[in-house]
Amino acid sequence: MKHNLKYFLPLVIVFFSACNNNKENEVPRQQNTLIFPQGNKNTTDNFKGEVWVAPLIEADSLNQTAVGNVTFDPGARSKWHTHPAGQILLVTDGVGYYQEKGQPKKILRKGDVIKCPPNIPHWHGASADTAFVQIAITGREKGPTVWLEAVTDEEYHSGDKD
Amino acid sequence: MKHNLKYFLPLVIVFFSACNNNKENEVPRQQNTLIFPQGNKNTTDNFKGEVWVAPLIEADSLNQTAVGNVTFDPGARSKWHTHPAGQILLVTDGVGYYQEKGQPKKILRKGDVIKCPPNIPHWHGASADTAFVQIAITGREKGPTVWLEAVTDEEYHSGDKD
Repeated sequence: MKHNLKYFLPLVIVFFSACNNNKENEVPRQQNTLIFPQGNKNTTDNFKGEVWVAPLIEADSLNQTAVGNVTFDPGARSKWHTHPAGQILLVTDGVGYYQEKGQPKKILRKGDVIKCPPNIPHWHGASADTAFVQIAITGREKGPTVWLEAVTDEEYHSGDKD
Repeated sequence: MKHNLKYFLPLVIVFFSACNNNKENEVPRQQNTLIFPQGNKNTTDNFKGEVWVAPLIEADSLNQTAVGNVTFDPGARSKWHTHPAGQILLVTDGVGYYQEKGQPKKILRKGDVIKCPPNIPHWHGASADTAFVQIAITGREKGPTVWLEAVTDEEYHSGDKD
């Protein structure tokens, strides 16, 4: 039995190498879903934690709908705010939260969509452990976003299971 | 040498199985980028070829922006048409075409965005060989899409290299 090792060992190495090479050629799941650019890091105090914003479409006089790609690092979130013409969110990756004032916090995942009515205070952000990527579609025809108070840790974690 | 086969063969089978199991667990690249549902096959004559439409957000009285996910099979395209309030396209997968009347045809790929002005005749669709997936963001506040004539094969192939 002992002398067979000299035959086994190269075989084991060859097949482990083959498996590892396949893994190197895989496209990582996360990288694969990043369709639009991450953009620049937010420098305003309208968000807590690291948030990245890439404007995709600017509002103009003929079409006042703006579109942006927003990436929240785990734990990052917006302040409470309202949009005078409302907002639509399309979730393209990760796990995040959305809450309207007086309503329970919703958990959002890739493929979920949200329509936030005009002038309703709300916030959105990533879950505590997972980043979150959303396309934000915002009408600018009735004025800019109105920023309100910060989301407290109690609000952020509301409804979380122990 | 011959008697060693009884040791080699099970090893070969074990390691090939291990490699194959890894492949089964991979998420295929194409499937991975399908964030939003494909929806239902178009049954109107506003398109040529197979086109799938999934309404994601309907217009309402408070926010008249509609959002839909549109998938064109290779070679499929819309008729020429206009939107009274304009349209925004976000390309999430594949390779497609976009053309405004009197302008050269543009080739669109994953991550590209288009802002089509109000009342400008245009068409969009997949390239001849590759499917095309777009998010269409359309204001309904000034009325529905106005459908025009079909895109001829000459128009569809305009600018293609021989």
